[in-house]
Amino acid sequence: MSKERPLILVSNDDGISAPGIRHLICLMKKLGDVFVVAPNSPQSGMSHAITLESMLFSERVHIEGSEVTEYACSGTPVDCVKLAMNKLLDRKPDLCVSGINHGANSSVNVLYSGTMAAALEGTIAGVPSIGFSLLDYSQDADFSQSEDHVLRIARHVLESGLPSGVCLNVNIPKLSREQLKGVKVCRQSDGHWEEDFDERMNPMGKTYYWLTGKFYNHDEGKDTDIWALENGYISVVPVKFDVTAHHHIQQLNFLNHE
Amino acid sequence: MSKERPLILVSNDDGISAPGIRHLICLMKKLGDVFVVAPNSPQSGMSHAITLESMLFSERVHIEGSEVTEYACSGTPVDCVKLAMNKLLDRKPDLCVSGINHGANSSVNVLYSGTMAAALEGTIAGVPSIGFSLLDYSQDADFSQSEDHVLRIARHVLESGLPSGVCLNVNIPKLSREQLKGVKVCRQSDGHWEEDFDERMNPMGKTYYWLTGKFYNHDEGKDTDIWALENGYISVVPVKFDVTAHHHIQQLNFLNHE
Repeated sequence: MSKERPLILVSNDDGISAPGIRHLICLMKKLGDVFVVAPNSPQSGMSHAITLESMLFSERVHIEGSEVTEYACSGTPVDCVKLAMNKLLDRKPDLCVSGINHGANSSVNVLYSGTMAAALEGTIAGVPSIGFSLLDYSQDADFSQSEDHVLRIARHVLESGLPSGVCLNVNIPKLSREQLKGVKVCRQSDGHWEEDFDERMNPMGKTYYWLTGKFYNHDEGKDTDIWALENGYISVVPVKFDVTAHHHIQQLNFLNHE
Repeated sequence: MSKERPLILVSNDDGISAPGIRHLICLMKKLGDVFVVAPNSPQSGMSHAITLESMLFSERVHIEGSEVTEYACSGTPVDCVKLAMNKLLDRKPDLCVSGINHGANSSVNVLYSGTMAAALEGTIAGVPSIGFSLLDYSQDADFSQSEDHVLRIARHVLESGLPSGVCLNVNIPKLSREQLKGVKVCRQSDGHWEEDFDERMNPMGKTYYWLTGKFYNHDEGKDTDIWALENGYISVVPVKFDVTAHHHIQQLNFLNHE
């Protein structure tokens, strides 16, 4: 790889053949040398999981028209980033991008998301990192409408870096280029899922469940990602891996005990 | 269940038969009515993963001497908490505890931990929650040395609650009752893992890896969990599910774009 062009690691959680990552790879090729390590199967909802109880396979794959080095890995998104950084790459990437996810990772979804975990893992390794998500689960999702914004954000981060310990959670509403109002830096909205376990019985008479649910936003703030997305903006939330509730340390000091 | 006694949900990530959860169940029985939903197999490193691509099984199990209602579930720790709250329990628990984990969940390990994800999921559902971990991976780990502290912390949380959106990450050093110096409320230390992928070849000639690594702490702060643990204290870190890097929003406003 040439030393002049930045090295960009690309991963995701929908799997290496998902339209979202194929589109992101095309865009990142405009900014640098691209290296892909992504799951060989869908890993949605895998969060920051790592594979401890079984082994990991990875193999070089050749995807028509890609022209970049690509590895498919049997593990989680975080495994992919770890394998790339510690085994497959010979130098630290200048940027780590994850996505473009099929579906929202706004609000509390940031915690369940494998896409965002891959970006956060890049940050832990000291690489400026961004997770991108489009609010469209469809395999026919149109990732091209927001490509100018995706490129602009990635270029900014390549040029200016990010604060230490912080990555970006970028969510894109399902709108046309003309309808997109712009980009808003905001905070994670306060929301949660109410689960509705779909109960069935297998042919042997054993009960099983499918996890389904409905998301509830309970945050009216105009500075939140949910507000931005509902009002036509691409939301950008700076996300950190220090999950300490610093403001509450003093309040909890009554637990101290000698 | 009687209305006078608090209802305590217990889960973990090492699986329902792990000595750590068995000990925690015994302790919680002193404080209230206990209800257990825990994975039927080890789920270490599963973080906040949820099962979206396959179904979930759960079955009532009867463990000798337990006398409490227990379900073993095929899913992740977070699946267990969701299943308990939304399907198996007929009222909201007063406390959700997870663990006692076999091994540390201090510093950045909080992100990879299934134990802590179960506690955080309790918090998202509005239930005061605590994750407990002992710095001893052994199956013979002695959980009794710290039981007064575990009970004291759980009782405090039952009586006083926790700030909204905050759970506790409690780590216990491997020390005797006499050696334990006390409890310190602190912040998550800044550290990371350097992975060393153990490369092997299967009988068919295909390369595979085991994920191994070494943890590096790069935070000298005496207000950190790592410092507390190394100095004989039980560490208590308040952990929140809002992962926004609030202090950096203004700094990133240059990304705003209309």
